[in-house]
Amino acid sequence: MRFIIIGGDAAGMSAASRAKRNDPDMEVIVFEQTNDVSYSACGMPYNIADPGRDMNDLVVRQADVFRNKQGIDLRTGHRVVSIDPSKRDVKYTDSNGEESSLVYDKLLIATGASPVVPDIPGIDLPGVLPLKSLDQGRKIKQFIQEHNVKNAVIIGMGYIALEMCEALRANDIDVSMVKPRKNFIPWMDDELSDMVKSEVEKNSVKLYAGHEIKEITESGGQLKIKCSDLDLKCDMVICATGVVPNSALAEDAGIELGIKKSITVDKRLLTSNENIYAAGDCADSYHVVTGEKAYIPLALRANRAGWAVADNITGGNAELEGIAGTAVFKVFDMQVARTGLDMNESKRAGFDPVDTVISTRSRAHSYPGNAEIKVHIIGDKKSGRLLGVQMAGIDGVAHRINAPAVALHNKMTVEEFSQCDLAYAPPFGPVWDPVLTAAVQLMKKM
Amino acid sequence: MRFIIIGGDAAGMSAASRAKRNDPDMEVIVFEQTNDVSYSACGMPYNIADPGRDMNDLVVRQADVFRNKQGIDLRTGHRVVSIDPSKRDVKYTDSNGEESSLVYDKLLIATGASPVVPDIPGIDLPGVLPLKSLDQGRKIKQFIQEHNVKNAVIIGMGYIALEMCEALRANDIDVSMVKPRKNFIPWMDDELSDMVKSEVEKNSVKLYAGHEIKEITESGGQLKIKCSDLDLKCDMVICATGVVPNSALAEDAGIELGIKKSITVDKRLLTSNENIYAAGDCADSYHVVTGEKAYIPLALRANRAGWAVADNITGGNAELEGIAGTAVFKVFDMQVARTGLDMNESKRAGFDPVDTVISTRSRAHSYPGNAEIKVHIIGDKKSGRLLGVQMAGIDGVAHRINAPAVALHNKMTVEEFSQCDLAYAPPFGPVWDPVLTAAVQLMKKM
Repeated sequence: MRFIIIGGDAAGMSAASRAKRNDPDMEVIVFEQTNDVSYSACGMPYNIADPGRDMNDLVVRQADVFRNKQGIDLRTGHRVVSIDPSKRDVKYTDSNGEESSLVYDKLLIATGASPVVPDIPGIDLPGVLPLKSLDQGRKIKQFIQEHNVKNAVIIGMGYIALEMCEALRANDIDVSMVKPRKNFIPWMDDELSDMVKSEVEKNSVKLYAGHEIKEITESGGQLKIKCSDLDLKCDMVICATGVVPNSALAEDAGIELGIKKSITVDKRLLTSNENIYAAGDCADSYHVVTGEKAYIPLALRANRAGWAVADNITGGNAELEGIAGTAVFKVFDMQVARTGLDMNESKRAGFDPVDTVISTRSRAHSYPGNAEIKVHIIGDKKSGRLLGVQMAGIDGVAHRINAPAVALHNKMTVEEFSQCDLAYAPPFGPVWDPVLTAAVQLMKKM
Repeated sequence: MRFIIIGGDAAGMSAASRAKRNDPDMEVIVFEQTNDVSYSACGMPYNIADPGRDMNDLVVRQADVFRNKQGIDLRTGHRVVSIDPSKRDVKYTDSNGEESSLVYDKLLIATGASPVVPDIPGIDLPGVLPLKSLDQGRKIKQFIQEHNVKNAVIIGMGYIALEMCEALRANDIDVSMVKPRKNFIPWMDDELSDMVKSEVEKNSVKLYAGHEIKEITESGGQLKIKCSDLDLKCDMVICATGVVPNSALAEDAGIELGIKKSITVDKRLLTSNENIYAAGDCADSYHVVTGEKAYIPLALRANRAGWAVADNITGGNAELEGIAGTAVFKVFDMQVARTGLDMNESKRAGFDPVDTVISTRSRAHSYPGNAEIKVHIIGDKKSGRLLGVQMAGIDGVAHRINAPAVALHNKMTVEEFSQCDLAYAPPFGPVWDPVLTAAVQLMKKM
């Protein structure tokens, strides 16, 4: 049996490794168009923050380990150009550009996602750089050094944009951030979003939300971002306005796409074709709160989905229930976390959401290091169910989001969740954990 | 309606406040034998650690606030001596020692717990001190200063004993710890227990486990702990060998006691008498894993039970599902957390437990501050259910225990738990959270 995998990052390499572990006799071939496999993409901003560190630190496992120790036929620099499901073959070009094709028994599409390239004149100028692949990370790092970058503009204010603003400040680069939409973090309640905003501004980052970008121009080595009512000059532009699934190969092969043009998969990760699976940032998933399809490309899901595909093609029957949309990020000293739905998503999903925002403390009132935590909690008035939690604060936020995440997987009501026996000791929290206090307060509205 | 509460700490004052909030016309009388109410008992070791801080910092709300702002008839220095359920009255002595009695409609026994006093000759010598009430905390602090304590022996190696050893080291006191049982932390797997032990020993604390204590003697201001094969000399002895419920009042009144002589209550916190409730460290609870009674006196449960009693006597119907036995403590830089059952408890409860211990990292491999975390996870081979998780490490342990705690409330299987969508970002964890990695590893044995 021959298992072909297109894409050698989280989902692809997880599937390859596990397939070989499950069935050492299986022929596993991975086509990866770049020369990098199995690296921590999420670690790139932190690596960029430190000029002394090599980007290769982020590689979790070298290509040769997969080849020699695991027996995976890993072909880097190989690009798949088309899939023919009727013949069960893939056409690809090798590192010399020569085209061949190969027949598969089972195929996994793990092509990931790419940065959105906004439709702005000048977006392709040198010095306007996106961040997604390790190579793009290297280019940013190199550009900073070679051009002695002193000031930069980041287009976008999402997770990656914020992580990058911290990384650039660590390089002593002046940073401005700009985007068309007015709200700083649109999925967050203003009270929480304002906490994050203050932290970013405290670190001398200038925020320009609500400015349509008309054009980027270059003159004498300086870039200029032209908005209708604002011009921003800089040495470098980072474009971080979200990602889109790399689903063109699948679409061209007649495979069904769904939400945001991601590849539609069932709980076993099977696409609309019985021999073709998809996993990772190119594929969709079920959301455990709504039961509906969602496109929330994150690393844990990619790894897990890769494993499940391997299990399913080696005689297992792995079904992934779905995601809760749990995510966390840090910007300077501020920790931001979320799980489940925000208010707009709750309404769109047909719930009757009520919410509350509380301010509480990260540790016991008498314990040093104690800081403010704000929690935004959302429940469904009809069913009593917990729908989502968001948190922000400089201490003790990140891991706290996981308790409500598990509650969402279990479709707990706000009341049931409020009764959970969570840990307490003065160095780590108040007697009532912030997420419990939030649940208790929300119950008054339900 | 008159609601009498015996005991003015966590459970008692929570009940009093909430009863007045639910029904401002209710007469709420609290008898508290000491002069302290509503303080953070768990904060005492951290306060003792800092000679510059006043013990009164731990008082969350002053007695007069309860009296004047909340209209609670709070009688400090009043000691209840007996309950007569047939007459529905309590007999008490006031601060002048004069005896009176008062009739109740509903009674709450919230008398807490007391330190175990081991049956050792010399245990009542001056300089041999327990820690439970705020007053006992003050005495320890005072004794350290007045006697210029240079070395101390702690009898016991539980949570409080370990927190106290850190507090005394912070006062630059040499500390030895001694106890009869051989295992350092008996409910922990050796691999985890050894991590904690190393941390304690690294901080110059001497551990003597497995030494029966025969006698404590005093000579020339020096105390001597005599064991069969060991003598330990010191200026002060802290006795921290666990607590027992203060249930004598209830027992004398014919109220049913259960596990470890705690007061038996149902999910509504009612005792065997229809007008008498019990809550806090004097009462038992249901364990959500076993469904059986347990005596695990902790602060969150006490607060929650106080609220539930107030709701139930003011027309509500609050049922507390139970506890998961979730707890966390810190000793020096080591964080230790647990939820659910340990191996012995699992066997005793009739499960067929299998377990595994994993070693993983607290953050992404490339992120600074990343430290080892060990996770011990236990599942039931018959049902597949998750039974318990224990963790130790110097970074990122404390809040991580809450995700498996919520899983236990929902009776999740290890497999279901392994599929939860937990948060990931390099500053806060590896892609697979340590508790998920532990679950995935345990599945191989189930």
